[in-house]
Amino acid sequence: VALSHEELYSAWSLLSTEERVEGFRLLSRPDAEDLFDTLDARDQSELVHALPEREQRVWIRLLAPDDVADLVQESEEEDRAAILALLDDSMRKEVLALLAYQEDIAGGLMNPRFARLRPEMSVDAAISYLRRQTAQSVENIYYGYVLDSRQRLLGVVSLRELVSAKPGTRVDEIMETDLVTVPEEMDQEQVSHLIAQHDLMALPVIDADGCIKGVVTVDDIVDVVREEATEDIQKLGGTEALEAPYLQAALVELLKKRIGWLALLLLMSFITARAMRHYQHIISTVGVLAAFVPVIISTGGNTGSQAATLVIRAIALEEVRTRDWWRVAQRELTAGLTLGLVLGGVALATVIMWNFLPRLFNGDDAFGENYMLIGLTVAASIVSVVLWGTMVGSMLPFVLKRIGLDPASASAPLVATIADVTGLVIYFSVATAILTGTLL
Amino acid sequence: VALSHEELYSAWSLLSTEERVEGFRLLSRPDAEDLFDTLDARDQSELVHALPEREQRVWIRLLAPDDVADLVQESEEEDRAAILALLDDSMRKEVLALLAYQEDIAGGLMNPRFARLRPEMSVDAAISYLRRQTAQSVENIYYGYVLDSRQRLLGVVSLRELVSAKPGTRVDEIMETDLVTVPEEMDQEQVSHLIAQHDLMALPVIDADGCIKGVVTVDDIVDVVREEATEDIQKLGGTEALEAPYLQAALVELLKKRIGWLALLLLMSFITARAMRHYQHIISTVGVLAAFVPVIISTGGNTGSQAATLVIRAIALEEVRTRDWWRVAQRELTAGLTLGLVLGGVALATVIMWNFLPRLFNGDDAFGENYMLIGLTVAASIVSVVLWGTMVGSMLPFVLKRIGLDPASASAPLVATIADVTGLVIYFSVATAILTGTLL
Repeated sequence: VALSHEELYSAWSLLSTEERVEGFRLLSRPDAEDLFDTLDARDQSELVHALPEREQRVWIRLLAPDDVADLVQESEEEDRAAILALLDDSMRKEVLALLAYQEDIAGGLMNPRFARLRPEMSVDAAISYLRRQTAQSVENIYYGYVLDSRQRLLGVVSLRELVSAKPGTRVDEIMETDLVTVPEEMDQEQVSHLIAQHDLMALPVIDADGCIKGVVTVDDIVDVVREEATEDIQKLGGTEALEAPYLQAALVELLKKRIGWLALLLLMSFITARAMRHYQHIISTVGVLAAFVPVIISTGGNTGSQAATLVIRAIALEEVRTRDWWRVAQRELTAGLTLGLVLGGVALATVIMWNFLPRLFNGDDAFGENYMLIGLTVAASIVSVVLWGTMVGSMLPFVLKRIGLDPASASAPLVATIADVTGLVIYFSVATAILTGTLL
Repeated sequence: VALSHEELYSAWSLLSTEERVEGFRLLSRPDAEDLFDTLDARDQSELVHALPEREQRVWIRLLAPDDVADLVQESEEEDRAAILALLDDSMRKEVLALLAYQEDIAGGLMNPRFARLRPEMSVDAAISYLRRQTAQSVENIYYGYVLDSRQRLLGVVSLRELVSAKPGTRVDEIMETDLVTVPEEMDQEQVSHLIAQHDLMALPVIDADGCIKGVVTVDDIVDVVREEATEDIQKLGGTEALEAPYLQAALVELLKKRIGWLALLLLMSFITARAMRHYQHIISTVGVLAAFVPVIISTGGNTGSQAATLVIRAIALEEVRTRDWWRVAQRELTAGLTLGLVLGGVALATVIMWNFLPRLFNGDDAFGENYMLIGLTVAASIVSVVLWGTMVGSMLPFVLKRIGLDPASASAPLVATIADVTGLVIYFSVATAILTGTLL
């Protein structure tokens, strides 16, 4: 049976390790190479470890040093030495150098193999030098990095410029010297901002002495942007960032990442129970007020998580910086007030309708002659709760950033829970203010 | 005063249009070009429209056809014709062809200028042809697309392969013919999956006859991945996707995108008020039960939004497909039960502690001799609500996808509100079951 690598890839997530190896062996050699390239480091590691050592060597040697480093990082602690032993000396040195960096900084992302040129080379010498580099498995020969004798980066010249230049020209006459470079320790998120902003294909990584250590290419950045967005989304949902795809993550890991925030939020929500006990006398006097507690707190929670989500994403995209907090506060003050007035109006209308058309609401006995006071209490509480939720949601990310935490930790559930607790206090204070002398 | 383009760029979001133009004019010509390249289409459009017509022409002509098309799309309806009039005939034709595509499909993303080669060309002829292409402002000469006489795509050859090949070789001897291509109508999100999966630098766009229409390059995909993640995040937060960065969006637009879901969720939450009325007799008999209403509903909401967020992101990354719903359901059933038991235990412990250490809870009079029954009611409700919230949150995205809606519309606030309503019913049913005969 002829099996294509696309077919196998699309079924990959459903297969056991044994089935994956079996399918992989059914592929033609070029198809197997295509599939191997397509797999992420985690899947590559699983597959390689399931193969006999002789085959392991073949597949590992297909990879660039940065990809081998990723594969090693995805392997179990005890298997790492075996993988490193498969490499030849120079490759092992490169991989070990990369493994010394954290995965999520420029140093951990860069490829240490790139094309090095000398400033005094002629264009023709440079082209034929680049040509030979392909044999040295340098992935990216589209840029030549022009270095002095101490490996300091002087400039960059693209293969495009080289082939378009007059034959006699020297490299340093056409190289670009106004360069965007990054230090080894730069966080991958910032690296991705720079690449996106300047529409770069590759970005050199420089140490403190101005020596070039490697090159980050845009195809690696696509993965970084996806990863960073995934982390932010998971944090927004109240989970710690998962390290593996959802279906691959061990169930115990998945639960560990989820229980922390949930338990903390549960304990926080007991403050609402405490607040409810505090206001019990109001509820026992005007029983109907209890009915609107869920409406008030979920409206506060919803507006809060909406505002938090918008602000957190804008901060992540660097559309909003810390110094913009006051502009955001002004916007959200206006937004919160407007949204509050509209939603308060909707609430008032609903209560009035409920009173006059009790049949619509399933034969409920409605709120008696004071329905207007009840409606006003609910509406005024909603205006305040929405305004407050919006302010908490939009400002908490700035507060977290200011004290050195990730703004994305201001998750929707956290903001919702904070808004719940304070929402109750607002509701019963408004009720006391409006109803004292009539119903209270 | 010497002003660098980085300084001006970093202040950009704080400046008025007039200040932007003024700053832009202070830059040296190369710096101004760098800055112009860095700006997104929206900012480019604003800047160009603020310049006199003579200068407009200069800046517009710096751009590739796909970037001009983006700029036109970001301009006001009435200004578009003026921009198109600045272009020369062939460029205008290309831009108009691109404008006919929607922005978010492969056709709207591709660059119609790319290097065309013939299969019978020699490698040397191909290199010198590519060399001349630079003068024709073809951005990407790293790939040559090999076409037959009817513009059908036969293969691709990289500049790298060309420079490494023996001089006498024909292009069709070294071209890659096993190609990944996409149709013009493919959604940009799918295009980005393909590029990320295959680590491609460029992807040809093909019409129904197999003719090449243009090329999508990886640097455009970085922007797409960011945009798509932003849309998903905004939807998860209960906002419709914004079309502009947060601080640039008109306040009225921002409010329109936010009020829809909030109003709908408010109306939905009135069902909880209806449910509370229905169970009023329980609350008036056992007043202390009202105190835990916010705890129950926020716990259900939190677990629901957590599960929804995880599943929605996994679907967006294609880690989980529609056919995986049953595996997800099994995972979440186990996860929901485990999380529920842990959280239920925490809740029971909290109620017991509250009863024995009322001082800790600010001198509350606690729950009397039946505190254990109250604690069990709360704990059992939390187990059920967490299990239910997890199932709703994880399955709703699949349901939405199945009926053709965006799974990301299963926003955290929507799931939380659904979990609220059903959480109340669960709570009072559990209370009835446990307390009938003792407290009820």
